Amino acid sequence: MNIKLTTGKIFPVLGDESLLQALKRNGIYLISSCGGKGICGKCRIRLLEGESRIIATSKLDPREIDTGITLACQTFPEGDIFIDIPKESELILGDKIALSKSGDLRELLKSLGAGISPVVRQISLTLPPPSIQDNISDLERLRRSLEEKDIIGMRFTYDFVSSLSNILRVADWKITLGYTVGHDVVYILPSDVEKRRYGFAIDVGTTTVVVYLVNLTDGKLIDVGSTYNSQMRYGDDVITRIIYATESGGLGELRDAVLSDIKGLSDPLLERHNLKREDVESVAVAGNTTMTHIFWGLNPATIREEPYIPTVNFFPRWRAETAGIETNSKAPVYTLPCVASYVGGDIVAGVLASRMHRKSEIALFMDIGTNGEIVVGNSEWLVTAACSAGPCFEGSGIKHGMRATEGAVESMKIDPETFEPTLGVIGHTAPVGICGSGMIDAIAEMFLKGIIDRKGKFVKGLKTNRIRDGFEGLEFVFFKDESREVVLAEVDVENILRSKAAIYAGVSVLLKEVGFGLDAIERVYIAGGFGNYLDIDKAIILGMLPDLPREKFSFLGNTSITGTYLCLLSKELRQEAGIIASKMTYIELSISRSFMDEYMSALFLPHTHMRLFPTVKDLLAEK
Amino acid sequence: MNIKLTTGKIFPVLGDESLLQALKRNGIYLISSCGGKGICGKCRIRLLEGESRIIATSKLDPREIDTGITLACQTFPEGDIFIDIPKESELILGDKIALSKSGDLRELLKSLGAGISPVVRQISLTLPPPSIQDNISDLERLRRSLEEKDIIGMRFTYDFVSSLSNILRVADWKITLGYTVGHDVVYILPSDVEKRRYGFAIDVGTTTVVVYLVNLTDGKLIDVGSTYNSQMRYGDDVITRIIYATESGGLGELRDAVLSDIKGLSDPLLERHNLKREDVESVAVAGNTTMTHIFWGLNPATIREEPYIPTVNFFPRWRAETAGIETNSKAPVYTLPCVASYVGGDIVAGVLASRMHRKSEIALFMDIGTNGEIVVGNSEWLVTAACSAGPCFEGSGIKHGMRATEGAVESMKIDPETFEPTLGVIGHTAPVGICGSGMIDAIAEMFLKGIIDRKGKFVKGLKTNRIRDGFEGLEFVFFKDESREVVLAEVDVENILRSKAAIYAGVSVLLKEVGFGLDAIERVYIAGGFGNYLDIDKAIILGMLPDLPREKFSFLGNTSITGTYLCLLSKELRQEAGIIASKMTYIELSISRSFMDEYMSALFLPHTHMRLFPTVKDLLAEK
Repeated sequence: MNIKLTTGKIFPVLGDESLLQALKRNGIYLISSCGGKGICGKCRIRLLEGESRIIATSKLDPREIDTGITLACQTFPEGDIFIDIPKESELILGDKIALSKSGDLRELLKSLGAGISPVVRQISLTLPPPSIQDNISDLERLRRSLEEKDIIGMRFTYDFVSSLSNILRVADWKITLGYTVGHDVVYILPSDVEKRRYGFAIDVGTTTVVVYLVNLTDGKLIDVGSTYNSQMRYGDDVITRIIYATESGGLGELRDAVLSDIKGLSDPLLERHNLKREDVESVAVAGNTTMTHIFWGLNPATIREEPYIPTVNFFPRWRAETAGIETNSKAPVYTLPCVASYVGGDIVAGVLASRMHRKSEIALFMDIGTNGEIVVGNSEWLVTAACSAGPCFEGSGIKHGMRATEGAVESMKIDPETFEPTLGVIGHTAPVGICGSGMIDAIAEMFLKGIIDRKGKFVKGLKTNRIRDGFEGLEFVFFKDESREVVLAEVDVENILRSKAAIYAGVSVLLKEVGFGLDAIERVYIAGGFGNYLDIDKAIILGMLPDLPREKFSFLGNTSITGTYLCLLSKELRQEAGIIASKMTYIELSISRSFMDEYMSALFLPHTHMRLFPTVKDLLAEK
Repeated sequence: MNIKLTTGKIFPVLGDESLLQALKRNGIYLISSCGGKGICGKCRIRLLEGESRIIATSKLDPREIDTGITLACQTFPEGDIFIDIPKESELILGDKIALSKSGDLRELLKSLGAGISPVVRQISLTLPPPSIQDNISDLERLRRSLEEKDIIGMRFTYDFVSSLSNILRVADWKITLGYTVGHDVVYILPSDVEKRRYGFAIDVGTTTVVVYLVNLTDGKLIDVGSTYNSQMRYGDDVITRIIYATESGGLGELRDAVLSDIKGLSDPLLERHNLKREDVESVAVAGNTTMTHIFWGLNPATIREEPYIPTVNFFPRWRAETAGIETNSKAPVYTLPCVASYVGGDIVAGVLASRMHRKSEIALFMDIGTNGEIVVGNSEWLVTAACSAGPCFEGSGIKHGMRATEGAVESMKIDPETFEPTLGVIGHTAPVGICGSGMIDAIAEMFLKGIIDRKGKFVKGLKTNRIRDGFEGLEFVFFKDESREVVLAEVDVENILRSKAAIYAGVSVLLKEVGFGLDAIERVYIAGGFGNYLDIDKAIILGMLPDLPREKFSFLGNTSITGTYLCLLSKELRQEAGIIASKMTYIELSISRSFMDEYMSALFLPHTHMRLFPTVKDLLAEK
């Protein structure tokens, strides 16, 4: 039983596997946001010839079914088949993705008053050579010299001691030692060998992975690599990944996927700068709690089960060889501490990078990525929550949703008279889908121009043939040519409203918990790759962001990697990250009664209570 | 090209290998005290058919050569050969050897005032189960409960944390934790699982390996295993082993040999007592400095090169998995600290077991095993030296020398008139060789009966045909039948005198170094397997032991394993062992000018200066 593709490739299908599984096993990955449950409707393929058992088609338009479209995860070949994989179904991994501007990181480090103090410290020693009179062993000789410098209690690994005798003699008793503050030896070198000191800062996002190569001597960011997290082939969000890790026993696969992404980024970085693996002597890594657990190969099962308990929040400083990262094998890996099951080290890094924890003004920190996490507080207190906003702003769960890559509609205007849209498309190509900022623009425009009402429902009787009755209900057609169309359906709008409502309600509940109103917020920090392209005015019209003076908003970009960079370099900031994580009070929204009320109120455009959005009220009144 | 044995076995010889190497490669080990250099003359075989290139025969009697005897290490087959291996040339490994009486070890522990406090401590904890309100991670929950018991700074391994989530839930949050004083976790178990707590004390001697299985709860010695150190196939003494480890790259082979000896002893111990490997949670090991280095796989090269520096004296507490011992893989291995290149942890263990370091009386501790180490001192001070006595008392370098096993002449009387000997033979069989105590008896008797003079030379003109002119000079024939004879030659006597002179000179020099005379010694402790069978009077006549009142001598047996047992069980005694090792001043005899003088004076029977041996003087005067 074989599958033949229109590209000419042929490969076998095993026993009872779905077409999605068969393709995956052969290295062809389809977009599969739901992890193969027939729910997301993304893994569409076209059956051209052959017999298959098709389990479910509920996500498909009957017109699509007529042309042979089926979901690969719901299709089980029953003989040789011939199929076509549409471009939009294919998951392209390993793409280098655009990186948000990192600014001058060294300036940031300086402004935080932090010196350069990486996890690995270095000391040069000249040992007195042994003699009959001074005949203590090599290791005691080293210990004695360290004690003279007040370094006591060093822990020597077996590998280190095995090589000691030879290195001391080759080095003529003049050595350079790298060791951690926890007193583990990392390396020993003859003093006359120049030691190149580099580190990796790694941000393991649910969607993207970023690696910074940093010079640990001066803090300089040498180079950057980024790619999609190829765990995406197993599902878009953390819940789907946890299910895959636990119910399908796929933890190892998920771990391998992200480790190979990291290697795919870090190896070329080293090559480009003529560095060896041994030159990388420490690593700092951040991610949400689930990503961090999977990175370390720890079972994330209990994260998802009430009462939502991670195995670790404050990770011991294990070695690169344990992590599976190819650097100096003894390099310590510092993991940004997590706060709770759904607020991880990426948010701790974000708060650190924002500096909100050092100021007396009350700030709101929002990281709107694959998940939506928020923090409110100042130098005295911090509260945090995860909003379960879902990954719709990254394209998941939206019929023509996609990430902000070439072909994505990222902005738009709609003519108030003709309802004709003018589209801004990334890469200035024909549009193939719509990304997060495009969705926000679209809904704000559709609302302002009277195409949808406050509930997100399409207004009946408008004079435009852009609105049509599709398979899943009404939809607005932004683009259409012979081969492709881009629409936003009423169900998509509902999805987006649910996401924005979750974010807004999260902010409201957090503020209520600490007894403040929106007016108490003196500063709003927006983090996450998404944040960079966000039109604040439109996001306020949508009711996702609170209606505050525009000058209070700041974009910080990817604060997870920025905070990780800071921790890679500075002992004080690692301590600060620990304090931030300990200090943050986590509010579990899923069990909060007031969250449900707030959420229901926020499902409107911009909100049930217009008084909360005075500038939007004024804008509507103008019309 | 094949070798055929009289037993019928046939196997091939490769290119340029010696017969000794070919036999070894095929699992047949000959006694080879010199490691295959043609010096010891032990690896005799009889060539029955076939052509061979024979390099050297200097150790062989022409009469032996006539019967086809040759040294396997000096014989290179040049075609198919047929050989016979005499019983006395074969090295029998894996024999269970007799163990010196250990006495009631628990009484000893008690008399030292030491409680039972193994390296691994145990604590039982009942953690409060997590809830939405108390939602810290599993690891922080454990840390919090430990902190409440004042246990802070615990280091959690990756493997431990990987299993934590599951075990806590299976155990319903009631757990038993094993951890080291250095704060490494060793095991975690549900509290309702009965934890069996056992340990191994291991003595890695140059000649023998001993394993004690000990109950760590009550200190009871459960069972004992002992065998020859199968490193012996590579040479008898530490120098030959160091050469094999370094010049022939055989470190791995030597390490594997002793590890397989340990496994061969420990596996049956566990089986006999229905224990699992995981039940063994800690290990203590002692050996001389070379044996300890090889046990850990550390290159012993620098031990042998001036200024004689070991890689480590105070060994870090690495794990059983690093050592290659099959117990709980995380079990900490405590290594008795060494003092210098030729005074190791076995001697530190010995001093500890003797208790000389706690008393004000000045004591002499002598461990006469494969090497000869001595310690002089009391609770205030300790000095130590290695005597390079050589392994002749274990049979090496003596024509018919052998270890104290079946067939060894262990005692004798010589008739003053007829010069006919009466032999005491181990196992009451026909004698096949002579062991250490037999040699001492023989020389004392031959000296007292006027067969040899004070220089160890045979007295001419005696009326006996027991003295004959052999290939290597004069020799005394103790036993002779059709198939076998046992003789002691003048060169053998010289060898033994050199050994005893080295021991006696060592004692003299040590005493001189601290400004004392022999009369200052209030107690003599004799340790080592050899010590058990030693006739004090004869050893004084030989001039090996100082001529002191007999009641000052005590036999302690194998103090290395006794001290190791003590350290396995008691924290205080581990600390004491550390203090002993730090406190001992090591005197390097090989560079001491006075040692040479003392040695030359001690080459006589019993000594150049008869005044040092008043009781021997009296004994001779009586005749």
